[in-house]
Amino acid sequence: MNFTYFIPTRILFGAGKLNELATCALPGKKALIVISSGKSMRANGYLDRVIDLLKKNGVGSVVYDKILPNPVKDHVMEGAAVAKTNGCDFVVGLGGGSSIDSAKSIAVMAKNPGDYWDYVSGGSGKGQPLVNGALPIVAITTTAGTGTEADPWTVITKTETQEKIGYGCDATFPTLSIVDPELMLSVPPELTAFQGMDAFFHAAEGYIANVAQPASDLFALESIRLITKYLPIAVKDGSNLEARSAVAWANTLSGMVESTSCCISEHSIEHALSGIHPEIPHGAGLIMLSRAYHDFMSDKAPDRYPAMAAAMGVDISNLPLEKQPKAFVDALATLIVDIGMADISLIDYNVSPEEAEAIAANAWDTMGGLFELDPYRLDITDTTSIIRDAFVK
Amino acid sequence: MNFTYFIPTRILFGAGKLNELATCALPGKKALIVISSGKSMRANGYLDRVIDLLKKNGVGSVVYDKILPNPVKDHVMEGAAVAKTNGCDFVVGLGGGSSIDSAKSIAVMAKNPGDYWDYVSGGSGKGQPLVNGALPIVAITTTAGTGTEADPWTVITKTETQEKIGYGCDATFPTLSIVDPELMLSVPPELTAFQGMDAFFHAAEGYIANVAQPASDLFALESIRLITKYLPIAVKDGSNLEARSAVAWANTLSGMVESTSCCISEHSIEHALSGIHPEIPHGAGLIMLSRAYHDFMSDKAPDRYPAMAAAMGVDISNLPLEKQPKAFVDALATLIVDIGMADISLIDYNVSPEEAEAIAANAWDTMGGLFELDPYRLDITDTTSIIRDAFVK
Ligand SMILES: [Fe+2]
Ligand SMILES: [Fe+2]
Repeated sequence: MNFTYFIPTRILFGAGKLNELATCALPGKKALIVISSGKSMRANGYLDRVIDLLKKNGVGSVVYDKILPNPVKDHVMEGAAVAKTNGCDFVVGLGGGSSIDSAKSIAVMAKNPGDYWDYVSGGSGKGQPLVNGALPIVAITTTAGTGTEADPWTVITKTETQEKIGYGCDATFPTLSIVDPELMLSVPPELTAFQGMDAFFHAAEGYIANVAQPASDLFALESIRLITKYLPIAVKDGSNLEARSAVAWANTLSGMVESTSCCISEHSIEHALSGIHPEIPHGAGLIMLSRAYHDFMSDKAPDRYPAMAAAMGVDISNLPLEKQPKAFVDALATLIVDIGMADISLIDYNVSPEEAEAIAANAWDTMGGLFELDPYRLDITDTTSIIRDAFVK
Repeated sequence: MNFTYFIPTRILFGAGKLNELATCALPGKKALIVISSGKSMRANGYLDRVIDLLKKNGVGSVVYDKILPNPVKDHVMEGAAVAKTNGCDFVVGLGGGSSIDSAKSIAVMAKNPGDYWDYVSGGSGKGQPLVNGALPIVAITTTAGTGTEADPWTVITKTETQEKIGYGCDATFPTLSIVDPELMLSVPPELTAFQGMDAFFHAAEGYIANVAQPASDLFALESIRLITKYLPIAVKDGSNLEARSAVAWANTLSGMVESTSCCISEHSIEHALSGIHPEIPHGAGLIMLSRAYHDFMSDKAPDRYPAMAAAMGVDISNLPLEKQPKAFVDALATLIVDIGMADISLIDYNVSPEEAEAIAANAWDTMGGLFELDPYRLDITDTTSIIRDAFVK
């Protein structure tokens, strides 16, 4: 019972909430709107809506629209230059995790000298403190993905070195986040599944992390419960607003878990995997690693697994004590079936088992810190062995 | 599923956390330390410790030590004048709810013109918006009482008119709260019980309020669970740090409920009661009203009572549906016995049943707004009848 609780973001949640952008207090007069290089923000009309709502609120805007699914440092630097050139005084991230993460990093570089990697810790990052904080950040989520709307974290890849590293500080908490499940109705099933499972693993990892705290436990178990119950529905019927809302809230909860606890080495390994193979969506990488990872981890550190199994709806009181931790792994396998992802495989993504050592080494090099938060301390051999197992599990 | 989540306070929680006051970031260079007129902050050495820790952090301080158990507006105005005269740039509330609430209100009046009642809504308050925000507020709790360290609310009495009214806005959230259960080890059993039950009712009312939201539900049920389990232990053995920590966290959670949901008319009625009879501790008033109140309310709006009964440890699955809501009232009566408060009575506090109508009228006059948040809409006759019942239940 010794912890810090700090989630300063104002979160507006609910169907139709986007409209409040026209009336709510905003942290500036000119926004840099950061969106992905894909078509959906324009095709769905979200970009025009946001520009119009900001205008109604007396706020001008400039659009930066180059963000990739695995966002890269070059775009952070370019977006920051666009913000400075245009005199933007806050940044709006509109879209999924990649756009909002980029908005956070752009907000940092719009106010600080040098290179983004000067401030990143881990890998070749220099880990310097920010000189000037960051521009205020507004997050508008159109997917139930990374929980980034409720945490300070942003994950950016430095292409040259294949480093995919998380960064965050007080200044990168969004000032305001709008989570409007209506904006998520058009997310296709596959993305719904990948992003929902990203949220699931944020919650699960945050629950078993050795830095878990009473508040993160509440958020994590509720997030796990909601995703298990509603993600299969949202995948099968994307127009189900109740399921979309439940998954959206579960995702926001998983961000609150990230703010009060932390991801563990499962995320280090996945970041290495999709750092080296950028065509692998982050959520897909997690799904493909997860059964092997939690099978191993629930053997070594079983204590917190039964509560997660219970949150997934398993009646653990009917199981002998020694079978309760594995009930989580079984329920996870069932959930992966229920969301239609039982058949995705590393092989199909052109990953070879021979890369296991290189992926493990990259995980330790770039995000080695998360291994210290594991409930059981893995070594590099364990890590390699988990990755190898992921080819068969 | 339509709500706003906003709790910007940084909460440092745990035994020994007070020491971080010497090293953590503070929002100013000169603090007005607000404490009660009682002896405990000096006798326990807490005031000297806080002054020393602030000094180590390079922060000077001035002490204002007149706060009453039911804090009054005159002291808010005087404390604000002391802050201004001495050039204080933030306010530290050290003690129980009365000191921290006063610190919040002083922080408002140190930066705004006119009278505190100009900004209060309800009763004879003028409900004007703040002109200049408020000084930053640091809350250091020495009791597990009102949850005020995790919410924006402050309850102040205007003596002349017997109005006891809550106030709060974004500017009255503490910037920083330190919740150190070691500081609570010396709270005597009776106060422990009264304050713990205040937290209990903040959670229970916030759970059944018609403005409850998914986050407040999580906080409320966990708070109810922890208080039911640990408050009797903390009352019986004040030196039990595990029980003190659990109750302290439950209390902070109840403040988070206040930030995301709201108290309902049970609090309006109690504020009227202890507004007219200032010798009644707030928690005692709640305890004496609660069985009658929840007996009535669980008849009229039973839906959310079973989950509260379950959080209190009742195996509701063994009860027929129609008996599940009342299981909460029974568990509450048991809890009141377990904390040694079965025998306190309105009569012993010199309240007469003939005052029921006047108390009900005062409740509607001064805090009528909370009646609109009830799960079932009481009228003045219902209110009077609940108060009359409290003399026999
Ligand atoms: Fe993730
Ligand atoms: Fe209260």
